[in-house]
Amino acid sequence: MPAALAWNRYGKSSIRLVKVRRAADPHDIVDLTIDVSLEGAFEKVYTDGDNSACLATDTMKNTVYALAKDHPIDHIEAFASSLVEYFAQKPGVSLARVHTAEHPWSRLDAHAFMSAGSEEWTSVVERTGGRTSMTSGLRGLVVLKTTDSAFSGFPRDKYTTLPETRDRILATSITATWTYAGGFRDFGQRSAVRTALLKTFASHKSESVQQTLYAMGEAALAACDGLVDIQLSLPNRHHLFVDLSPFGLANPNEIFVATEQPYGLIEARITRS
Amino acid sequence: MPAALAWNRYGKSSIRLVKVRRAADPHDIVDLTIDVSLEGAFEKVYTDGDNSACLATDTMKNTVYALAKDHPIDHIEAFASSLVEYFAQKPGVSLARVHTAEHPWSRLDAHAFMSAGSEEWTSVVERTGGRTSMTSGLRGLVVLKTTDSAFSGFPRDKYTTLPETRDRILATSITATWTYAGGFRDFGQRSAVRTALLKTFASHKSESVQQTLYAMGEAALAACDGLVDIQLSLPNRHHLFVDLSPFGLANPNEIFVATEQPYGLIEARITRS
Amino acid sequence: MPAALAWNRYGKSSIRLVKVRRAADPHDIVDLTIDVSLEGAFEKVYTDGDNSACLATDTMKNTVYALAKDHPIDHIEAFASSLVEYFAQKPGVSLARVHTAEHPWSRLDAHAFMSAGSEEWTSVVERTGGRTSMTSGLRGLVVLKTTDSAFSGFPRDKYTTLPETRDRILATSITATWTYAGGFRDFGQRSAVRTALLKTFASHKSESVQQTLYAMGEAALAACDGLVDIQLSLPNRHHLFVDLSPFGLANPNEIFVATEQPYGLIEARITRS
Amino acid sequence: MPAALAWNRYGKSSIRLVKVRRAADPHDIVDLTIDVSLEGAFEKVYTDGDNSACLATDTMKNTVYALAKDHPIDHIEAFASSLVEYFAQKPGVSLARVHTAEHPWSRLDAHAFMSAGSEEWTSVVERTGGRTSMTSGLRGLVVLKTTDSAFSGFPRDKYTTLPETRDRILATSITATWTYAGGFRDFGQRSAVRTALLKTFASHKSESVQQTLYAMGEAALAACDGLVDIQLSLPNRHHLFVDLSPFGLANPNEIFVATEQPYGLIEARITRS
Repeated sequence: MPAALAWNRYGKSSIRLVKVRRAADPHDIVDLTIDVSLEGAFEKVYTDGDNSACLATDTMKNTVYALAKDHPIDHIEAFASSLVEYFAQKPGVSLARVHTAEHPWSRLDAHAFMSAGSEEWTSVVERTGGRTSMTSGLRGLVVLKTTDSAFSGFPRDKYTTLPETRDRILATSITATWTYAGGFRDFGQRSAVRTALLKTFASHKSESVQQTLYAMGEAALAACDGLVDIQLSLPNRHHLFVDLSPFGLANPNEIFVATEQPYGLIEARITRS
Repeated sequence: MPAALAWNRYGKSSIRLVKVRRAADPHDIVDLTIDVSLEGAFEKVYTDGDNSACLATDTMKNTVYALAKDHPIDHIEAFASSLVEYFAQKPGVSLARVHTAEHPWSRLDAHAFMSAGSEEWTSVVERTGGRTSMTSGLRGLVVLKTTDSAFSGFPRDKYTTLPETRDRILATSITATWTYAGGFRDFGQRSAVRTALLKTFASHKSESVQQTLYAMGEAALAACDGLVDIQLSLPNRHHLFVDLSPFGLANPNEIFVATEQPYGLIEARITRS
Repeated sequence: MPAALAWNRYGKSSIRLVKVRRAADPHDIVDLTIDVSLEGAFEKVYTDGDNSACLATDTMKNTVYALAKDHPIDHIEAFASSLVEYFAQKPGVSLARVHTAEHPWSRLDAHAFMSAGSEEWTSVVERTGGRTSMTSGLRGLVVLKTTDSAFSGFPRDKYTTLPETRDRILATSITATWTYAGGFRDFGQRSAVRTALLKTFASHKSESVQQTLYAMGEAALAACDGLVDIQLSLPNRHHLFVDLSPFGLANPNEIFVATEQPYGLIEARITRS
Repeated sequence: MPAALAWNRYGKSSIRLVKVRRAADPHDIVDLTIDVSLEGAFEKVYTDGDNSACLATDTMKNTVYALAKDHPIDHIEAFASSLVEYFAQKPGVSLARVHTAEHPWSRLDAHAFMSAGSEEWTSVVERTGGRTSMTSGLRGLVVLKTTDSAFSGFPRDKYTTLPETRDRILATSITATWTYAGGFRDFGQRSAVRTALLKTFASHKSESVQQTLYAMGEAALAACDGLVDIQLSLPNRHHLFVDLSPFGLANPNEIFVATEQPYGLIEARITRS
């Protein structure tokens, strides 16, 4: 049938990039979602199945990570300008466009950050047989630390490929539920529990999410006499190290991919002994 | 077939409640999502279609709004305790449970609040013909004001039922995109634009979302010389007044339902004249 | 500051409309999400707070429901054309636009429909102490029936405002989990359980969601000898009757608003007796 | 502070697994999301930072992919039983649990599948200056083919690492919008357009998403005389090949990870020439 290509555009969307500026003291982070798209002389890709002009979208993704290494990314407009300058000079490109969304973090301490975004404060209150019982909690309190997190010494079996690490990003979304002692009614203690969780996450020298979880629970119990126990659920939001060596670049723990699936999930309940 | 009811529970979920404490100066708000569920002697509802013991879930919802009127709701645990005490004494109920999620807001001024939850900072940068152009922006900046918002004087046709109001809740999620003058590179101006938008939202005596939008755009242009224009998109997140008069209660603009669908959507671009 | 309104648009988004064509036998439904937007001579709304030209977005919503009453809505393009013709002739309007999204349903029987959209088949398998136990299930199986659903005879207390009804829309998203007898391994029975749930939902003369739930569970147990018990969780996705009488129109159970919040939630476990 | 670990559980969640049964003719697929969790003697991980008993959650993920290779996965219950048997015998484990969600696909042809899940039919109708214009469309029509998709011959620069492939999974969620000729009112043509898109996706020997997109657009124009043009937007939902060679297993294009981020995005408008 006589058809024609009237317009075309292609690219890579939802490139997740976290850059840690470790040179800075305190550390700084920038957390971005980037879409790259190109227009240009790509007709034969569509009409003839001829890919000789088709810069792979996987290459676009690699390029974003590689260029992120040496750019300060102090402002997304400046980094995006570098990207479009690079892509605009590739063969056949008549227009290069970069959409960027920056996810802001607020600082907890020198190496830890918080995104209170979807934080909610929760309770479950139940009455049966003339007695009321309850738990209190919070969820969606997102935190990240750029250092003081290790994971090593774990067993290796025939399906183990994970390398040991003494320095990784640790990120999670805290869900906590706790029980107050019978008759305790000072529900404003939520704030003390929350502070204890945040401070411990930030300061803990972590050997595992499990160990940090335990320390956080312990700190919450210490901070509030009214607490009987606390249950924590910490998804491990993996930030994957990007291997830049194929591009002749070192990555001294600066460039990471933030991922959502799969995720580790660590849960425990801590009580007074 | 010989079957039996082994366990049952029913209730109303996702009851959205916003209470404004107007007596307080400054105003205070509490924003909750509540689930009520009951267990008890409800077998015949399932097995015989006999509803004589079945408290309607719509009644549960009404009850939550009615009891919210006179409760301070200083802590969700206390309000939920009142609710389970009420529901537990209804005929047939052996267990009443209330799940509550509180959505925290931070204060902007005496009558305005912010939920920076899903805020993102955005840019679109494009390069074609050897020239780079860009817009900057933000989205997901959620704000609410408890007073200084009216909507009246609009035309009434045969499909108009909306009453006029001189005092309503105004809530929106700000999306803004702006253009800097050619060559302007001080991208840190994002912060000044953001502050201008927030301060104007909080202080404006609003006759409509449209008028507030215009004032916000005007303020952003005034705050930053580098801005050429700004486009704003403001969904009107309707907070519906709850009529408590069937329950013999007044509602002096204190009890509202936060809704998501449908929503007004107001958009405009403001330039320097 | 010298600012000017360069462009503006406003309207109502996410108007949820379900129309049942009862004249047809079998019944037919159409399920739409509609956005209306207008451009035109609305500058003074923005700049002067003068609403005399501002058709309320609430009026737009009412108009959509009212015009839906007499339109066949056989194709969304035709209904949307009627809407833009109506809105384009309102004072000041230079451009009227209607976005429509139709959510397709497939027919189960004369008065029941299915949207297999997000259906998932689930299992939880656990091993401890050398023994494996499991449950199987499904979730996200969305169904709706246009008749044979009543809710009446429920108790009325001081917070009850819900009218009794002998004919309403019943819609839910089925979540089911069931247990097979020890040693039973014919996991293909999932299909027989699913069919029993759908057929019973479609054919049941419902006095309540509870009664329909029980009948569905009973039918699943009857359909599959290997089942020991089945637990069902049925959110009541309320379809609210639209009162068209202010517009001089009858609504013989044809025009509804599909809502998401709040929702009833009915749960029970049925076993062999 | 005297605290104690009352309960703990950990594991890997949202492991995305797609298995293609290529031996079968026609091909068969199974699409799963799996959560693995373990309970047992892991106290020292929490309290002492001693990871010697802590099977890495990354190892759990690898194990799921490796065991999927040789299991038929005819029923999720059977595969999950194999998994819990494997995990239950690891050191320290007292309880192994596997949650599985299967995402059903319906067959389009021997090597292609459809998930009509979130499909919507769309239109945008606009009236200005006394004239009505419109586009029609659909979105959320998810399709996947297990063969007849290649991507090779693309340029390699210093940031290119993607290997060439002559056989990959191709999956996308179709968004299409088309324009009918002026005065054309047979809106039921949506069905013919949809069928042309699906059939062409299924049967096309694809050298790239771009080429398949073009063929789909061409087929839609051929199928419906009333169409003036059609615009397609096809996200490339990458299914990543899992390298099982570290576990001594071949992966003859059977085991894949379904990913959501990042994704390629290919867009074009096809007209009659």
